[in-house]
Amino acid sequence: SRELFVLTYGALVAQLCKDYEKDEDVNTCLDRMGYGIGVRLIDDFLARSAVKKCRSYSETADMIAQVAFKMYLGITPSVSCSSATGNEFSLILDKNPLVDFVEELPAERASLCYCNLLCGVIRGALEMVHLAAEVTFLQDRLKGDAVTEIGITFLRKAEDRKHKRN
Amino acid sequence: SRELFVLTYGALVAQLCKDYEKDEDVNTCLDRMGYGIGVRLIDDFLARSAVKKCRSYSETADMIAQVAFKMYLGITPSVSCSSATGNEFSLILDKNPLVDFVEELPAERASLCYCNLLCGVIRGALEMVHLAAEVTFLQDRLKGDAVTEIGITFLRKAEDRKHKRN
Repeated sequence: SRELFVLTYGALVAQLCKDYEKDEDVNTCLDRMGYGIGVRLIDDFLARSAVKKCRSYSETADMIAQVAFKMYLGITPSVSCSSATGNEFSLILDKNPLVDFVEELPAERASLCYCNLLCGVIRGALEMVHLAAEVTFLQDRLKGDAVTEIGITFLRKAEDRKHKRN
Repeated sequence: SRELFVLTYGALVAQLCKDYEKDEDVNTCLDRMGYGIGVRLIDDFLARSAVKKCRSYSETADMIAQVAFKMYLGITPSVSCSSATGNEFSLILDKNPLVDFVEELPAERASLCYCNLLCGVIRGALEMVHLAAEVTFLQDRLKGDAVTEIGITFLRKAEDRKHKRN
């Protein structure tokens, strides 16, 4: 059952808001915690999903949305590719269970990315399968946007970057 | 899926260990957070379990173990009544999913009640159905005990106590 998780997550965010005055620091902390979780969660994911190796960024983004989100949050975001270069994707969440008990962000916390843990989880899990990515919230219904949108930008591999520099 | 919850809970405990030097303060904080969660979770529980009103402490303890624990943590602790007065119960957890990713407590955190949030949740939820209780860990496998045991002591109702004092 998800409710205990969702409320516990709320307690975590509330604690960090006590600990850090600046929203940016809370966001960074949530992302960092999520990263540590993703690094550990990937084994569980690979073991239980029994998915095959993805052969493209597009396949990977679909896997995150259709298998991972379904498994851990019970929702399936839609995926769109948002760049001509084929390395930027958006996960669109019509519904976000993590905010089920949140009515709105308090005025003094307008820059809080409440669910930023998720970005860190995705980033950490991807890194463990040798994919570097930037993961951030691009839109958030908690901030008045029409949908919640997580942006994933796959970064060139280290060798590619090195090669380019040389 | 439970793993994301369990790892997120771990991040919460780790954060509190950063925030508070003394284990007792972490324990108190977890209990307090749990209380706040229990106060909100009870509505979800009553709505989804569709349980009838319990007519005794014993029925209530069974309900917590067999319905609530099953619903939120996927386990069913065994229940024993541990007092002649019929108001003290033990929930025995052979398996505790919340510690799935915890190998052992660090030496400097020997007094940490890692899962103390659960005590608070039970206490908060009970209070919302007008039952005052003390809820504490009596044994903990993380501390080397053979089982994990949560003690619930139902307190006399306020009117009873008042009556007695008069």
